[in-house]
Amino acid sequence: MSVEERLRQKKEAVELELERILSQEDSLLFRAMRYAVLSGGKRYRPLLALSSGECFGASQEMVLPFACGLELIHNYSLVHDDLPSMDNDDSRRGQPSCHKAFGEDIALLTGDSLLTLAFEVMSQASLDGDPLERKGWVIKEISHFAGVKGMIGGQMMDVTLSPEELTEEVFHDLILKKTGALITVSVKTGAILGGAGNSELEAIVQYGRNIGLAFQIRDDILDSADEEEKRDVSRPNYASLFGLEIAKNRLNNFIDSALSTLEEASLVSEELHYLASLLLNLEHRKGQ
Amino acid sequence: MSVEERLRQKKEAVELELERILSQEDSLLFRAMRYAVLSGGKRYRPLLALSSGECFGASQEMVLPFACGLELIHNYSLVHDDLPSMDNDDSRRGQPSCHKAFGEDIALLTGDSLLTLAFEVMSQASLDGDPLERKGWVIKEISHFAGVKGMIGGQMMDVTLSPEELTEEVFHDLILKKTGALITVSVKTGAILGGAGNSELEAIVQYGRNIGLAFQIRDDILDSADEEEKRDVSRPNYASLFGLEIAKNRLNNFIDSALSTLEEASLVSEELHYLASLLLNLEHRKGQ
Repeated sequence: MSVEERLRQKKEAVELELERILSQEDSLLFRAMRYAVLSGGKRYRPLLALSSGECFGASQEMVLPFACGLELIHNYSLVHDDLPSMDNDDSRRGQPSCHKAFGEDIALLTGDSLLTLAFEVMSQASLDGDPLERKGWVIKEISHFAGVKGMIGGQMMDVTLSPEELTEEVFHDLILKKTGALITVSVKTGAILGGAGNSELEAIVQYGRNIGLAFQIRDDILDSADEEEKRDVSRPNYASLFGLEIAKNRLNNFIDSALSTLEEASLVSEELHYLASLLLNLEHRKGQ
Repeated sequence: MSVEERLRQKKEAVELELERILSQEDSLLFRAMRYAVLSGGKRYRPLLALSSGECFGASQEMVLPFACGLELIHNYSLVHDDLPSMDNDDSRRGQPSCHKAFGEDIALLTGDSLLTLAFEVMSQASLDGDPLERKGWVIKEISHFAGVKGMIGGQMMDVTLSPEELTEEVFHDLILKKTGALITVSVKTGAILGGAGNSELEAIVQYGRNIGLAFQIRDDILDSADEEEKRDVSRPNYASLFGLEIAKNRLNNFIDSALSTLEEASLVSEELHYLASLLLNLEHRKGQ
């Protein structure tokens, strides 16, 4: 089976599980949650978690609740990020954003619900024996990387920093948190569940940081090139700030670093290799 | 030592731990989190968790991270609830509400941060051996009761139901979720950590539901009587909807039920008895 086919199967498993998780009842709040989550998206973070888990010997069954938890957290952040007091985005994935479709109050509660549900899903994961300790560890890591010192910290920088404060170093820090943190903890999750050793954890985190940076820079390149889609123009954008050539250059470098990290640590995973390399493709429209 | 003195000591332990948790750095986001959390509040939920834990033999050290997690969750819900798209409350605990002091975007992120931090704090709790399973169980319960079928579900009812839909039965369901869920899971948390059996868990949940209902009804009675404080007038209020006499009557009944539940299950705890009974006091201004 080709690597694309294997990733397609993993994505299907994620979609099915998200569908199951979000089908508990037919209330308005669940409809809003389903609207926000089940409307496309490449499921990049769950695929990273599953591929990393596989690389370290964790079963798909074991990783799946955490892969879905990560995707729920990612989607809550998009719903809240789109709100008028934040980015004020009217559309998301080609449809009206959650608050446009359901109202601001319900969108706020939808984001809160997705974040809370993520932890419910993860804490329900049934791991027996030794891996039980890994469950607490993974939840701790995910809450840390999703929190003040990770993703939310990055959003906070996004909201508070003025353009003149955005040197390339500061901007790296910003996107490493805003986008990189959840991507990094996605691969770290699979590694912890698979029982990776310290040096392997260090390597996979290094890989995650590099593709996290690359992911956001690619996103910015596509955004800046996309004449039709103006939605992110008001946000600091790598390509606009530092120029398209530098952006492309950095993108290539970060992917190179990600791939050599895998190689140096002897982590053999066609999937992790593929998931990094596809960020070099600037033809496809970005997916969240 | 009197029961008041013992509760005062527990509250002090909670304040110290919250202070420690929120002193990780001096960033704007942490300042906003400290502003929201360390500005008064009776710490009713942490006191319930600690007292219930004590009743079932869990040490204060074991329960404290979860007690603080519950308080962080409670405070995130207040910050988001005060936002303009929700209750649009300008003040909270006698000071400008979080979004009035820091802006809407930062208040949104502050709430998100407090919720995420709650799970980080709880997942960091170090329990050894058997209680390790209890940690996952407690996190699962707390995320469940704080989520769509609990607290957020109640907020959703608050936002979407029209006054004519609010029969007393529906309103009980609403406040059982909005206020009762977090109070119930607070006592359940202590019981689980202490290794309570099934019938004891049932009893403590029954106690929690009763004081949860009583807590909100008392709040509504005080709100409706308070001429100066108009902030909740637009929200459905038990006393305004069903009359002050009925409200007082229900308050007494729910406290009676809570106390007889303790007695019937032979749960001897001066603290739990006291924390229920003090809700009968309609002289003191409410505390959150």
